[in-house]
Amino acid sequence: MNDEGTVSLVMFSGTDDKLQAAAVLAVGAAAMGRKVNVFLQYWGLDAFRADRILKDHGVSPEAGPDGEAAMRDQGKTHWSELFREAKDLGDVRIYACGDSMEMFHLTTDDLAPMVDGIWGVASFFMEADGPVTFI
Amino acid sequence: MNDEGTVSLVMFSGTDDKLQAAAVLAVGAAAMGRKVNVFLQYWGLDAFRADRILKDHGVSPEAGPDGEAAMRDQGKTHWSELFREAKDLGDVRIYACGDSMEMFHLTTDDLAPMVDGIWGVASFFMEADGPVTFI
Amino acid sequence: MNDEGTVSLVMFSGTDDKLQAAAVLAVGAAAMGRKVNVFLQYWGLDAFRADRILKDHGVSPEAGPDGEAAMRDQGKTHWSELFREAKDLGDVRIYACGDSMEMFHLTTDDLAPMVDGIWGVASFFMEADGPVTFI
Repeated sequence: MNDEGTVSLVMFSGTDDKLQAAAVLAVGAAAMGRKVNVFLQYWGLDAFRADRILKDHGVSPEAGPDGEAAMRDQGKTHWSELFREAKDLGDVRIYACGDSMEMFHLTTDDLAPMVDGIWGVASFFMEADGPVTFI
Repeated sequence: MNDEGTVSLVMFSGTDDKLQAAAVLAVGAAAMGRKVNVFLQYWGLDAFRADRILKDHGVSPEAGPDGEAAMRDQGKTHWSELFREAKDLGDVRIYACGDSMEMFHLTTDDLAPMVDGIWGVASFFMEADGPVTFI
Repeated sequence: MNDEGTVSLVMFSGTDDKLQAAAVLAVGAAAMGRKVNVFLQYWGLDAFRADRILKDHGVSPEAGPDGEAAMRDQGKTHWSELFREAKDLGDVRIYACGDSMEMFHLTTDDLAPMVDGIWGVASFFMEADGPVTFI
């Protein structure tokens, strides 16, 4: 029933606060019946490495110690779990950017299993028929 | 006359330079007759607390001392005043993200009066029929 | 053949990693036949000064020394060259934000020749009939 197009999230940043915010947006968009494509680049891709996904990725510098404590204390679901819920809820795909894979010398085996594959930026824009949100 | 949809701004960041940039975009979009929804999350919400809105919120790390001085010296209208002007100019609404309210243990009374209410992320996407810009 | 509207990139950040990511998106969008408008604000505009464009602009704080090294080591095309390629490839325009020009006391002569002109934020939204991506 929704005709506003796919929500395309370019996940560039790799801090836990931005990953959490992106995951919350993905869940919300999926809950509203929107298709979501997540495109992992740079530090966002680095955070989705199988051996790092549950590690501490820091927060934005402006958080300050109080902000970081408030965020850590909330006992919220981890962002990786929220992305998993978004995928269960609707049509949510997560792709690694091929250029960034090369930059970090990664292969598909290095990534968390919830990553659906590797994309070039042209493929990303081929499906970007709605908002393109850079996080 | 404009049919490109609502401009949805996710105000995640809480530094004065990004808040100023977001406010300028809100004024510009409102001036062009576009509906604007601002959705306050994390450090962006923190900056809209009634007792902090006029405080110094720092700038992006890349500004450096010269950049920060150039920004501070310009004697420009404060971003909170620009958001107020945007609201006078057009259909601009500012909503606090319910999840972030919980994270910071805030109630509506803690927020600047220009905040119109509290939204969940699903409500946000219900009205997101245009660009979704994460700042 | 593409009717999803102009890709509008607000280039606010001035670090080399975000400029590189933006340039890659501009090339990809142009390759898919989309019109692209880049709007330079704040630290993004500062990075397009003729005398600074090839200087080191740092990277996002979350990169860490390993991340920065991986990025620097890749021997990739400089982002300014990628923007030039995007302009050769399709309809890609780069505009400086008038307000930010004033803030940094710049004139057109201070900017790299690939910048097409100066825009106000209202002009920017007049052409923003697709995604608006803040980087």
